[in-house]
Amino acid sequence: MNPQDDGLKAIFKPESVAVIGASRTPGKVGHTLLRNLMECGFRGDVYPINPHAEEILGVKCYPSVLKVPGEIELAVIAVPAPIVLQVAEECGRKGVKALIVISAGFREIGREGAEREHRLLEIARRYGMRVQGPNCLGVIDTYTPLNLSFAPAMPRRGSIAFISQSGALGTAALDWAMGEGIGFSHFISLGNKADLNEVDFLEALGGDEAVKAIILYVESIEHGQRFMEVAGEVSRRKPIIVLKGGVSKAGSRAAGSHTGALVGSYTAYKAAFRKSGVLSTEGVEELFNYAVALTEQPLPRGEGIVIVTNAGGPGIVFTDLCERYGVKLARLSPETHRALREGLPPEAATGNPIDVLGDAKADRYRYALERVLADGHVHAAAVILTPQAMTESLGTARVIVEMGERFSEKPLMAVFMGGGEVEEAVRYLKEHGVPCFDFPEKAVRTLSALYTYARYLKRPVERPTRFEDVDIDRVREIIRRARGDRRVVLLPHEASEVVRAYGVEAPKMRVATSEAEAVNYAEELGYPVVLKIVSPDILHKTDIGGVVLNLSSAEEVRSAYRGIMARVSRHMPQARLYGVLVSKMVPQGREMIIGMSRDVQFGPLIMFGLGGIYVNFLRDVSFALAPLSRREAAEMIRETKAYTLLRGIRGEKPADLKALEEVILRVGQLSVDFPEILEMDINPLMVYEEGRGCIAVDVKITLGVG
Amino acid sequence: MNPQDDGLKAIFKPESVAVIGASRTPGKVGHTLLRNLMECGFRGDVYPINPHAEEILGVKCYPSVLKVPGEIELAVIAVPAPIVLQVAEECGRKGVKALIVISAGFREIGREGAEREHRLLEIARRYGMRVQGPNCLGVIDTYTPLNLSFAPAMPRRGSIAFISQSGALGTAALDWAMGEGIGFSHFISLGNKADLNEVDFLEALGGDEAVKAIILYVESIEHGQRFMEVAGEVSRRKPIIVLKGGVSKAGSRAAGSHTGALVGSYTAYKAAFRKSGVLSTEGVEELFNYAVALTEQPLPRGEGIVIVTNAGGPGIVFTDLCERYGVKLARLSPETHRALREGLPPEAATGNPIDVLGDAKADRYRYALERVLADGHVHAAAVILTPQAMTESLGTARVIVEMGERFSEKPLMAVFMGGGEVEEAVRYLKEHGVPCFDFPEKAVRTLSALYTYARYLKRPVERPTRFEDVDIDRVREIIRRARGDRRVVLLPHEASEVVRAYGVEAPKMRVATSEAEAVNYAEELGYPVVLKIVSPDILHKTDIGGVVLNLSSAEEVRSAYRGIMARVSRHMPQARLYGVLVSKMVPQGREMIIGMSRDVQFGPLIMFGLGGIYVNFLRDVSFALAPLSRREAAEMIRETKAYTLLRGIRGEKPADLKALEEVILRVGQLSVDFPEILEMDINPLMVYEEGRGCIAVDVKITLGVG
Repeated sequence: MNPQDDGLKAIFKPESVAVIGASRTPGKVGHTLLRNLMECGFRGDVYPINPHAEEILGVKCYPSVLKVPGEIELAVIAVPAPIVLQVAEECGRKGVKALIVISAGFREIGREGAEREHRLLEIARRYGMRVQGPNCLGVIDTYTPLNLSFAPAMPRRGSIAFISQSGALGTAALDWAMGEGIGFSHFISLGNKADLNEVDFLEALGGDEAVKAIILYVESIEHGQRFMEVAGEVSRRKPIIVLKGGVSKAGSRAAGSHTGALVGSYTAYKAAFRKSGVLSTEGVEELFNYAVALTEQPLPRGEGIVIVTNAGGPGIVFTDLCERYGVKLARLSPETHRALREGLPPEAATGNPIDVLGDAKADRYRYALERVLADGHVHAAAVILTPQAMTESLGTARVIVEMGERFSEKPLMAVFMGGGEVEEAVRYLKEHGVPCFDFPEKAVRTLSALYTYARYLKRPVERPTRFEDVDIDRVREIIRRARGDRRVVLLPHEASEVVRAYGVEAPKMRVATSEAEAVNYAEELGYPVVLKIVSPDILHKTDIGGVVLNLSSAEEVRSAYRGIMARVSRHMPQARLYGVLVSKMVPQGREMIIGMSRDVQFGPLIMFGLGGIYVNFLRDVSFALAPLSRREAAEMIRETKAYTLLRGIRGEKPADLKALEEVILRVGQLSVDFPEILEMDINPLMVYEEGRGCIAVDVKITLGVG
Repeated sequence: MNPQDDGLKAIFKPESVAVIGASRTPGKVGHTLLRNLMECGFRGDVYPINPHAEEILGVKCYPSVLKVPGEIELAVIAVPAPIVLQVAEECGRKGVKALIVISAGFREIGREGAEREHRLLEIARRYGMRVQGPNCLGVIDTYTPLNLSFAPAMPRRGSIAFISQSGALGTAALDWAMGEGIGFSHFISLGNKADLNEVDFLEALGGDEAVKAIILYVESIEHGQRFMEVAGEVSRRKPIIVLKGGVSKAGSRAAGSHTGALVGSYTAYKAAFRKSGVLSTEGVEELFNYAVALTEQPLPRGEGIVIVTNAGGPGIVFTDLCERYGVKLARLSPETHRALREGLPPEAATGNPIDVLGDAKADRYRYALERVLADGHVHAAAVILTPQAMTESLGTARVIVEMGERFSEKPLMAVFMGGGEVEEAVRYLKEHGVPCFDFPEKAVRTLSALYTYARYLKRPVERPTRFEDVDIDRVREIIRRARGDRRVVLLPHEASEVVRAYGVEAPKMRVATSEAEAVNYAEELGYPVVLKIVSPDILHKTDIGGVVLNLSSAEEVRSAYRGIMARVSRHMPQARLYGVLVSKMVPQGREMIIGMSRDVQFGPLIMFGLGGIYVNFLRDVSFALAPLSRREAAEMIRETKAYTLLRGIRGEKPADLKALEEVILRVGQLSVDFPEILEMDINPLMVYEEGRGCIAVDVKITLGVG
């Protein structure tokens, strides 16, 4: 808990609560809220507010908060939308510290509601009140304890906090999770996020020692930078697992009409989650599976899991899935092998998966598990059981729990297949904190999540790289000049100069407006040169013959100049012409692309990948949000298939990966330093052999309309 | 049921069964088998065989089948491995038609066991008996009824048949499925497949009218061609859903040690499943989800589903998953929109997903469902429910079932999120044949499976394309000559001639062994030409300067010849040289690759994709098994990213797709006609603009060691 924020303290740990709109009628929202609060064991003062009642559920009722004799720290509002503002005003005057607005009828219903929401926020600001909602389903804190929600029952106390932008998805999932015996510390319904949003709650829960993992369902994140800061900081201490709703084109349309929120592109969200160590899932159930495993089991200290099974088939399926989800199988030590061969029947498979055979009782599982868990190459274990004639499922469950206690630094997971035959054993395992699944897939995905988080924690915190040898003033000047001319796309030689000012090698170039000038420039730059038409109206210069490569003499330059002018005036007589660009021809290298697109929520999204014509249809690209660290740049490169090409295929020398990394970092820095730059592309970036650097052949920079 | 096969009839519908190894001791295999048979309602004669017992479970016991007075149609054998052969021999003499060998101790334990299995098969053949197993867990037929397995209870009668190569996975999954209330027609444990294998059972079940869907878990398929024939034929009448165990490198090693079976590459399996209309899954649970939906619900008649939900969040998640799994959302007609706007509250979302809001009772679901299911653009519906204050979950379930009856041509699926709150409703839906899931993901995957199968059935049956203008004799002659020379790799000009004989355009080429000859050939072919060293020892000819392109005169050819010879003798003095290949230089086109690799189980696997140096690291390729139909060839092209390049990017003209299709088909035909060809590559295949064809620039053909 963040002790500085009184508003959040008031929401989770209030000493007094007013339920405004409390109702005598069972089934009504205002009744359920009050009853849940009364029944949850809350120890503070409770004030039902209802002008038409004397008392509800045995508690004295007040016509208004202003009539309540004592202090009120938190007010939950469940009155019709039109009177919410008046009620909020009264709360302000009463000195209430926080409001939970359950009432709907705000931004989600259109302009009128948005206006109402705006005024609600004004009132709250005026009185220094924090607001959860409106249009939310409330809050639960099992430690206070406090239940100001519609959840039919208080969840078991646990260490998982659950924040949901969709109230209904939240309570439904909570209901399901309670059936699975999963415990919670908090449930928070965000609603419209007029004031308090996921970041505020993440921050508060991050500081709460009772919380060991945070689950988040969001459809939008408005304050991307703050989210990354807070999530990045919190996720170093406890895992955050997120499901982002509205990732498809169709899905994000639905989100738009649902909450009116501005939904960013999923690419940027994914990059943001990754940068801040947040685990993302694509399904609801996984949120809980991951959270349970992450709170109940230790993190693996190294790669390499072992599978112990009493049937070959499920072991094979498990192994297949491990490969699919990037979980590595351990190679057992020779001693372990020997021990397994000695102690298991001769037909048992003692590789990995270890098949203890269909007639294995609990003791044989114990023998195998004791040996493999003692092996230093094994960092996690999955135990598969199928009910067969001799199988002792409950006994085996007990062995697993015991092993978990003995080898407490190694995560364990169980797959007990079958229905009634394994029911009791499954319950035993879950009650004792061992995740148990009915089929291999969920277990492997969950193991994979443990590994993802463990790897994240192992990575040293790296600061973004900053280069000092950059000429900020030069770039500022170029942008100023372009804006003066009302141009949003920089001219090629300007764009080239911008990246050069940030330490990226780019061919020298000048714009000639006559044949003679072109020859002069060519002589100055040195042959061979390239001529290229410069016009804001011509997009695909090559297609209309506006580019001539590889010119080696004054004569060739003159003739090329004339040719370009003739073709351009024939094909596009209306085009505005700024002249002809003369640039030094650069040698062929491996063609890559580096680009940037500024995301509304998360800022500059840097792209790297295979360049040239292939970028368009192969989409062999990776993304990360700037500012970038050296490791992030290196990972961007490694994630593409182009990496294979860069390392050298068929005896080629490897490319200059260090120089390439640096160009990515410098583009990142440029994008951070100049928010005016909306988008950019270096395509192709020629990458040469190790030690020979890179050259940004073609640079395109688009400015935001300043 | 295939009436011709007495053996299979004897397994599923025997009139008399001997349980050899029947035991008085509860818990023993021979006891469970007999008890299950007695208790399942089997109406035929039962003969326990045990030399040490008078009677078991009230049934008279015999010391040997030979002492049984009546006929015995089926014998199930559960005696120790060493006496199985003797018992089988007696069964043969008794005139038993089929054996189910439960006993382990055969091929799976190594050489001694393999020998025993071989002898078992010999005995069976001699007496005309069919064998299921050995090392299997038996059979269930709920219609006969017959339970000769260890399954703890007889499954509910249903229309799903389940064949499993892993007995333990099979019974565990059966146990789970029974808990879910899923009914079955058959359960078959394949065991070692000494005689009867998945194909035999597929064929039998394909002909059984009680069976509406077949689930298959296999780790290997030995008779690939027969599998494709039978599965392709059966899947036109009823869906086959398969999980292939051992698809990963690690997993297939495990399969190898588990059953000793020869496991083919998963690429070929995937191609085979697809070719024969078999649906494949990656998890066990999906096998059942798909089968239930396919047997209980109609197939969608067109693309376009509708989502009706009482909460926005789950609707968004569902929509995201639809995009991910290729399920399309319907665009509702204006009339439906109008009706929804009129009949639903103003805040309801009437797009798709349709949000009937959190306070929706069953009647509002009914209103929305009636309207959307009557819409001709809607071909399937998913109903999402989250328990909220006013929600009527059972009432809504009843509405869904009623709608399913009224709109019986449109499949329905439900997602009821939550635990106890929705339990009764979920049971109601399942009992009434509406698949109901706890979270969206499984529902979307299942819908996607319905669509995959529906699309498969819609495709007209197409015969493989055969061209008549091929010169089989020429190819035979070239292969004969190479074999005569003990060469397994054809020389470039031979390989080129092979594809030319099959109607694929390839540049003319000849091998020169002197400068003068090279010049002669160049003049004969016409300039420009290419020279290339021919040697079985030089793999990467370009790297050592063994290739010179674009030679336009006799002088250039002479100088290039000398250069190649000098470089080769410097870099690889030991290499055997067959001469220098002179070939006509071909114009640049879009570079593709067509290849073939012969799969042990499934035959020639044809590959198509982006060629040149990119094939190695981009892996933009697709596969299909020959012989190919025109549609398959077209699909191969469309599945690659290279298709975008072929259609033309940035104003390029489209490539000659028809000619490309034809080359793929001709390579397929060549591969079918010549099993001697083990592998081949055409890389690059230059593909030109529409109407200009393709040229196979470089052809490599490897023969099997004949």
